Amino acid sequence: MSTAKRKGLILVNTGNGKGKTTAALGMALRAWGQGMKVLILQFIKGGWKYGELKAARKLAPDFEIRQMGEGFIKGEDDSSLGEHRHAARQALETARKEIASDRYDLIILDEVLYAIYYGLIKLDDVLELLGQKPEKLHLVLTGRNAPPQIIERADLVTEMREVKHPFTQGIAAQKGIEY
Amino acid sequence: MSTAKRKGLILVNTGNGKGKTTAALGMALRAWGQGMKVLILQFIKGGWKYGELKAARKLAPDFEIRQMGEGFIKGEDDSSLGEHRHAARQALETARKEIASDRYDLIILDEVLYAIYYGLIKLDDVLELLGQKPEKLHLVLTGRNAPPQIIERADLVTEMREVKHPFTQGIAAQKGIEY
Repeated sequence: MSTAKRKGLILVNTGNGKGKTTAALGMALRAWGQGMKVLILQFIKGGWKYGELKAARKLAPDFEIRQMGEGFIKGEDDSSLGEHRHAARQALETARKEIASDRYDLIILDEVLYAIYYGLIKLDDVLELLGQKPEKLHLVLTGRNAPPQIIERADLVTEMREVKHPFTQGIAAQKGIEY
Repeated sequence: MSTAKRKGLILVNTGNGKGKTTAALGMALRAWGQGMKVLILQFIKGGWKYGELKAARKLAPDFEIRQMGEGFIKGEDDSSLGEHRHAARQALETARKEIASDRYDLIILDEVLYAIYYGLIKLDDVLELLGQKPEKLHLVLTGRNAPPQIIERADLVTEMREVKHPFTQGIAAQKGIEY
């Protein structure tokens, strides 16, 4: 309808099932197909998949995946959690900068909800980020356990619920499907 | 684990939420990134999105989307349902042929479950199709209301559940996101 508002959406993919990141990736491909500029930021180190990274390289420059966690020094916080916290904070910082840059049409904050849930970054910082979103930018947040304050601010929330999973049947992760 | 079986999976994206086709599209991109050959067959006419079609064109030849419903003659079955039935049957026929061809690594039967639910094609024909799947082929079925017989045969089933939707808030479908 012509009277409907035109605006960038805040979308959330949550739940315990597969497909949260994968659906974000599909959205990224659709947007890229429409000539939009897409950025995917990964808030959890090692959360990236080879298939995605290879595809992104082929779809460059308007389709970017950035991994975080570089420059971590063991002495700072001698734990795996410390390393994850470092990566998540780098991702948050990059998100702030790139959302403000207004260079992208779609930014995906992959596993940001997971990073909040595990206390790697603060919910308030992410809510502040949502408040700074340029009008036309689409923002996608993925991860388990979306907090109610994020759901409240989102336009579209989908829960991916696992009904049946192959790993429980002794089938190995399959190249191109799982990674 | 090294003892785990290596095989092509049957994956199902169902539920009333967004993201069933979008997650399949993300899977297609990941597989394509791994150098696999991908075919997407659309069982419901008009179910395609412009962003997807444009992206597929850029990712050709190893990333194909085929729409059905061509060659429908009004006199055959003078209704919109007749046209949909015609498209779904064409898609089923093509699926049979291309699954048997063994030319693809991943085939997506988009909205095939919707086509079964509305009686456009028969459940038994789709079950037969699953039985004919070459060992290494990954097959993805999407659509609402996955029948129990399909869930039984699937390796991975995810339900996409709508928690919140923007159209109920008077926000128009957004280019690159919804289509």
